[in-house]
Formats: sequence, C-alpha cells, structure tokens
Amino acid sequence: MRNLSLLTDLYQMTMGQGYYNEGKHEQTAVFDVFFRPNKLITYSVAAGMEQALEYLENLHFEEEEIAYLRSLGIFNEGYLNYLKNLRFMGDVFSVREGEIVFPYEPIFTVRAPMAQAQLVETALLTFINHQTLIASKSAKICAAAGGGVMEFGLRRAQGADAGIYGARAAMIGGCVGTSNVYAGKLFNVPVSGTMAHSWVMNFASEEEAFRAYAKSFPDSCLLLVDTYDTLRSGMPNAIKIFKELRAAGHKPVGIRIDSGDLAYLTKKARKMLDEAGFPDTIICASGDLDEYSIRSLKEQGAKINSWGVGTKLITSADLPALGGVYKLAAIYKDGMEVPKIKLSDTTEKITNPSFKEVYRIYDNKTGKAVADYIVRADEKVDESKPLELFHPTETWKRMTVTDFTARKLRVQMMDHGKRVYPEQPLSEIAAYFKKEYALFWEEYTRQDMPHIYKVDLSLALYELKKKMVEEYK
Amino acid sequence: MRNLSLLTDLYQMTMGQGYYNEGKHEQTAVFDVFFRPNKLITYSVAAGMEQALEYLENLHFEEEEIAYLRSLGIFNEGYLNYLKNLRFMGDVFSVREGEIVFPYEPIFTVRAPMAQAQLVETALLTFINHQTLIASKSAKICAAAGGGVMEFGLRRAQGADAGIYGARAAMIGGCVGTSNVYAGKLFNVPVSGTMAHSWVMNFASEEEAFRAYAKSFPDSCLLLVDTYDTLRSGMPNAIKIFKELRAAGHKPVGIRIDSGDLAYLTKKARKMLDEAGFPDTIICASGDLDEYSIRSLKEQGAKINSWGVGTKLITSADLPALGGVYKLAAIYKDGMEVPKIKLSDTTEKITNPSFKEVYRIYDNKTGKAVADYIVRADEKVDESKPLELFHPTETWKRMTVTDFTARKLRVQMMDHGKRVYPEQPLSEIAAYFKKEYALFWEEYTRQDMPHIYKVDLSLALYELKKKMVEEYK
Repeated sequence: MRNLSLLTDLYQMTMGQGYYNEGKHEQTAVFDVFFRPNKLITYSVAAGMEQALEYLENLHFEEEEIAYLRSLGIFNEGYLNYLKNLRFMGDVFSVREGEIVFPYEPIFTVRAPMAQAQLVETALLTFINHQTLIASKSAKICAAAGGGVMEFGLRRAQGADAGIYGARAAMIGGCVGTSNVYAGKLFNVPVSGTMAHSWVMNFASEEEAFRAYAKSFPDSCLLLVDTYDTLRSGMPNAIKIFKELRAAGHKPVGIRIDSGDLAYLTKKARKMLDEAGFPDTIICASGDLDEYSIRSLKEQGAKINSWGVGTKLITSADLPALGGVYKLAAIYKDGMEVPKIKLSDTTEKITNPSFKEVYRIYDNKTGKAVADYIVRADEKVDESKPLELFHPTETWKRMTVTDFTARKLRVQMMDHGKRVYPEQPLSEIAAYFKKEYALFWEEYTRQDMPHIYKVDLSLALYELKKKMVEEYK
Repeated sequence: MRNLSLLTDLYQMTMGQGYYNEGKHEQTAVFDVFFRPNKLITYSVAAGMEQALEYLENLHFEEEEIAYLRSLGIFNEGYLNYLKNLRFMGDVFSVREGEIVFPYEPIFTVRAPMAQAQLVETALLTFINHQTLIASKSAKICAAAGGGVMEFGLRRAQGADAGIYGARAAMIGGCVGTSNVYAGKLFNVPVSGTMAHSWVMNFASEEEAFRAYAKSFPDSCLLLVDTYDTLRSGMPNAIKIFKELRAAGHKPVGIRIDSGDLAYLTKKARKMLDEAGFPDTIICASGDLDEYSIRSLKEQGAKINSWGVGTKLITSADLPALGGVYKLAAIYKDGMEVPKIKLSDTTEKITNPSFKEVYRIYDNKTGKAVADYIVRADEKVDESKPLELFHPTETWKRMTVTDFTARKLRVQMMDHGKRVYPEQPLSEIAAYFKKEYALFWEEYTRQDMPHIYKVDLSLALYELKKKMVEEYK
C-alpha cells in the first residue's frame, strides 16, 4: 500500500506549523464536508467514505516523508517531530456509502485536534468528491437504462485510481459489472468483456474470427458484429456461428454493437436473432452512451438488454467535479463548543455553524422520504409531535409533518482515531442504495426538472446562524 | 509499488486466451496510439509515456493475480501458465513527453507478440490519455496567463492518481508549481501554499491571524485577504502586518484573493500595496479559473502575478477525456509486414495502415514548424529535394516545401522489452515543451479559431490506404 500521507495541499502543513507554533494544534475543531447545488446535481449518492477512513487509519509519516518536508526549508524541527509521531486521533461522523444525499448536508464530519483536522482536508475531499461524483452519475445512467449497465471506462479514466475507484463508485450507483479486472479483484465484483474489433481484424474473415472465439468460449460466446457491416456481414456470421454452437449443445449469449445507429441496428438485429431461433440471446450496445442517449434509444424502441458505458460515466463528463468543500463548523474552548461560520455576500454560501446532525423524515403512511432536517447535534427530534419545517433562506415556505419517522442519517465511523464502523461489502452498499432509492418519490429523481428535495434547518440552528451573521454585520 | 498488471479490460484477456488457443499469441503485431480531432483539441502536449513505460517494464502476474483469474472460471491452465511467465518483450516507439502532437499521429506504437500487445492496450491508454489531456489543458491555461500558474486542484481531482499525475502533467504544460505535496516529492517539483480561510477564522481577529502567520513565516508571508472584506478589512490588515515585517527586517511576499470580482479587487489591492510602499509584493488570484477567465481578467487589466488554478485544470473540465485509441496497424507473417486497416463509413475514422514514422517539417528560413508528415517506416525523407504535401482526405489541397529540415518525431523507447530511453527529469520535459512551443506560429496555438496544423500522409502511405479501402469495397 502506498503511503498517501503527503497527499495534501502544502498550505495544510504551513497552517499546521503555524498552529503548532501558536500552541493551537491540539485544540479540538469540527469540520464538515458538504457540497453546494449545481444545475446538474439533483440527488447524489455518497461514496468514497471507505477510502477516506482507510486513509485516516493509515495516516503516518515515515523518515522518508519527514526528510522531504525538511528539505523544503520551511518547517521547524518541532513541527517535523510532531508529524513524526502523528496518528489520526479524531472522531468521524459520516453518512453510509450508498446513502442519497443533498446539497448543504454535512455528509462527513471530522472532530479532531486542529492540526490533524486541517491536514486531512485535501485527501478526504479527493476521495469523497470523486466517488460521490461517479456513483451519482452511475445512478442516473442506471435509472435511465432500467438496469443492465456495465462500466467500460478504464481507458478514458483520469489515471489508474480514477478507473479503479470509479468502477467501485459505478457499482454503488447500480452498475452490474465492470470491464476493469483490477477493480473486479479488489472489490470482488463481476467483470465482463469478450472481444474488440482487433480480434475480428486478426483473422482472414469475420466468420473465421467468430468461429475461433466460439471455440475458445463455447458457453460465454458474445460476438462483436460491427467491424465491417453489422446487418449484412456481422449478424449473418454471428447467427451462423450460433447455429453451430447450438448444434454442438451450447447456448450462445448474444451480440454487441459498438457503432452506427444503435436504435435502428438493434431493432433489426433483434428481429434477425428471433427469426433464427435465438430469442434468448442478448444485445449489448456500447459507444459514447450516457443517461440522455440511453433514454433516447429507449424512446426509439431500441432492443438493448445490456449497456456498456465508458467515457461519460467514468469521467462524469457533463460535471467532472462535484465541488465538495470542507468547512470549519466549530472549535472547542475549555470543553465548550464555539460555533464558527464562514460569511459570504452570497447567502447560499454562508456555512451552517456548530456540530450538527442530519435526520431524514419519512412519512409513515407512504414510507417515503419527505425532507431532510439538519439540527444542532444535541437536539432531539420528537416523533410524537408535529414537526414544522421551513426553508433555510426563503423562510416563509413552511410545512408541518405529522406521523413521521426521523432517521439519523449519519453514524459514528471513527472514535478517537479508532475505526468503529467496519468495511461494508460493495454488494451490500449497492443494495443499500437501491433500497433507499425506492423510498424517494420519482419526482425527486427524474431526469427532467426534478422537484428540489427539502433540506431544512431546525429552528435552533437557524437562530444560531442568524445571530452569528448579525454579529458580524 | 502496486502491481497494476490487472489494470486492463477483461476482453484483453479473453482475446488473449483465444489467441493462445489458436496459436496466434506469439504473432508480432503493431498497434498505434492516436487520437481524433475534437473542436477543443487544437494542439496537444504528449505526456504519460513515462508511466506507460514503467508499467510495461513491471508487467508480471504473481500467484495472487493468477489465483484471481482462475477463480473467474473462464481461463484455462495453459493460458494462466502463459500469463505466469509473461514479461513484456515488445518494442515501443514514442514521441517524447512534452512533444506537441496532433490528431491522427501515431504518438506511441507498440510492436509486440499479439497477446502482449493486446493485453497492455487499456493501461497504456489510461496513462497517455490522462496526462496528455491535462498537459494540454495546462499549456492552454499557461499560455493565457503568460506564466506564473500554480496547480491547486488535488481536492477536485478524480482520485489520488488524477491529482498526482495530473500535477505532473500540469508541470509539463507549463505550471511553475503545485499545491500537491505528494507530487512535489515524487517528481521533485516546487510546492506552494500558505493559508486557507479556516486559518483566519481560527483567531479572534483577522489581524491576529495575519500576525500569527507572519510570526511563523516571516520570510514567506503571503496572506489570504478575502475572508471577511477584501478592501476594507483584508488589505488594511495585510499592509499593517507587512509594515511590521519590514520594520523587523523581513520582506513580505504578497497577498491572495480567492473570491469576488478579481479584476476590480486586484487593481484596488495593487494600488493599496504600491501606495503603502510594497510595489514588489505579488498578488495571487484563485477561484474557478481557466484559460478563458484568465484571458478576460487580463483584458480587464487585473493586476495578478500568480494564478492558482484548480478544478478546471485538474479535470480538464471542458473536455474531460482525450479519447485516444489503440488500433491495429499491422501484423507480421513469416517476417513480412501485413498492413491492417479498420474501416468505417466515416472517412476520418478509417485508420492508417502499416508500421509508420512521423516527421516534423521545419522551414529552414524561419525555423518554424510547417507540417507533420506520416510515412511508412522504411521511407526516407530526402531534405535535398522539394517535398510535396497533400491533405489526406481533401487531396487537392497541396503544398510544396523546399529548404526544410525533417525531424523524426519518435524515438525507440523499448527494444524487445528492455527500456532504451531513460527517464527524463520533469524540469527537462517542461523545458523541452517550452522550446518546441516556440517553434510553432502563434496562429496554430491561439485561443480563438486557430489554424489547423497540417498532418499529411506520404504518397506511399496514402496509396496503401487507398488500395486497402478499395479491396474491401
């Protein structure tokens, strides 16, 4: 395992030395990870917390790292010695991976000595921003497809980790497999793939190429039919080989089309396969797909059972960064919480002060999620009384909820540096997302102009924020 | 070091087993990496070759990887045994990192036994696509800024590698430093950074925060002035502290502004600094910058010496994937080259067959690059005779060059699996790019509607391609 302890911005360490010199490095601080709205962010799917926790658990500087930092000529021996003995000793409160999350919610909170909490900002954001971004894109693509999406993007990923952890996030969002063998082994998820055009080009004829493949993989034979001419060459050759396979007692799997008019070609191909007596074969489509083109193909009646999605999924092409931030919410003085706020001329950019908790409110009649509710951490939500929710900036927008269940959205994952929430199998994380997704009305998750899901503040949190803003004015 | 040998698409291995079963796995094949045009691709800056070569050198499967592959239940013991003994034994011909490259050019060519050449496709594309993408974006941003760009994007990168190797690529494209400490150590490049808003929020007042920072870093004091109010609070406080530093015999570095109207604020800030007697201090701007906003700021007369560029650089936000491909160009039968071509209904998508070489033609009068010239590898370019260039699809577009120098764009980097081109220091790669960039007319590299640089085929290559296309029709 690589030691990623230097995976941070230099300013975290210059500030660290400053805190050390000022004797502030051990002061407890609370930082929240959250993200802001964006026209492309409707709901998001939390991911990357596992890698964030692994990073925190393993944080330590070896002689090699210390020597490098010393060579920069800006750090004193006191701080370097502090780093040499550093282990992460903080608490972490986070939503589960696979949880559906919304703008402004503190999805991952670190409560730790100041110099530690600051040091880890960058890497935590890197892991959580990346995987949450890709899991969310995957969820949208899988919703459009209605299932059967495979992640094929490694070659277009922004480096090896983007491919590996992007595949992981894609599985959380609903993909049923990946082409990425490394990710398949690391996360124990299904891998898939059969042949490229180069295979077909490497034989004297397409028919010969197909026959050779069927010989090597008689029981998992899926043929790529668009190398020369899909309907005039690829499909007839595939059907010929499928008949040979059937005659020898094998069951052909299907075909893949990677170019051309996928709506037209898959309808024709389906008809040819059905007429040849192969109605159970699948048709896999690939080539520059995303949730928009998949929806269009389905509207056109394309006959596609399986979708290979690459570039636009693995890079989240229309929104290549989530933009999650990590903001100071409180410090502790003599054991007492001192809430902190970051002001801005833009009201939406003012942070929510204090150590907080998030509840999801479910309507007991329908079981569906109604709103999320951010409170100060010591507040209780009393399910026996009506709960009044109001919009955090347009406060005249109000709603009273009765007969509800309030679920705490976050769990403590680290306690004084010790991990108290075990690693979850990826299949369970994906199942968790699927279960939670079903508890949201489609109005919130649809592709076109979705409703904005309510994320409201408790009265106590709202009053605190208001008071702090006014104090600064 | 991680063993990335499984960093591939499963179909490379199913094809590998197919080739193995057919006795074709040792047949020599030639594959080219190239990319196609895109409205955002004018010139690109080659990068990622170093990681590609490291990967090829280290390619090997240990028992752990073999056991995983066996567990998939689709590979036979013959092929698994072949993999167990596999080392990359091929040749690599590649452009240098930092070389300016254009669509259709074979920038990285692998000549290797078929099953090996196929296996390595995915990882090679991952490394080269990613770093070439980011180096190119960096070059465009640095050109707009005219220098002084620092890479600040780690927290928004698509995973750790995207941050680390993205920083490397950004340095190749012209960045003068990075905030990423891990990358700083790994590639021996300058790291920079001072403070975040949280530092300022952590003290009773902005003035106190600035004074504490100045105490810790008296000789590298750069203050972030936009936490509360840039002109009314941040700048006066910074100037106060700068005066204290000067009185104590230190030289303050400057200020950073991360929000608000950067054009207006930096002009005002410059004036305040100059009037206070600090004309040598620098003004660093950051916050959602890219080549377009930088150009706009410069047009508005913003007073910025140093640019911190994050999200849009590290993700290449307007083009998050280069889309480079790896296509079969030839196989060898009984030692004789058999050129291969991939057809398409779209003329531009038809590949260039055979093992090739690329020359860059320089006008001896100006020293500037005139065109690139793709030839069959055994062709000689005779500088003593006029050279006729013609457009590869619109063949009536012709130009005759005289008094020119033809430089071979690629070097052999691996010979039968042995690396014959040593690792280059990153500073030399960046200097190489800078030198080559100066040999291109600005018309080819400008932001608005640049001229399309000519990439032409030799007559022999053109005739071969034409013949092969006609044979298929």
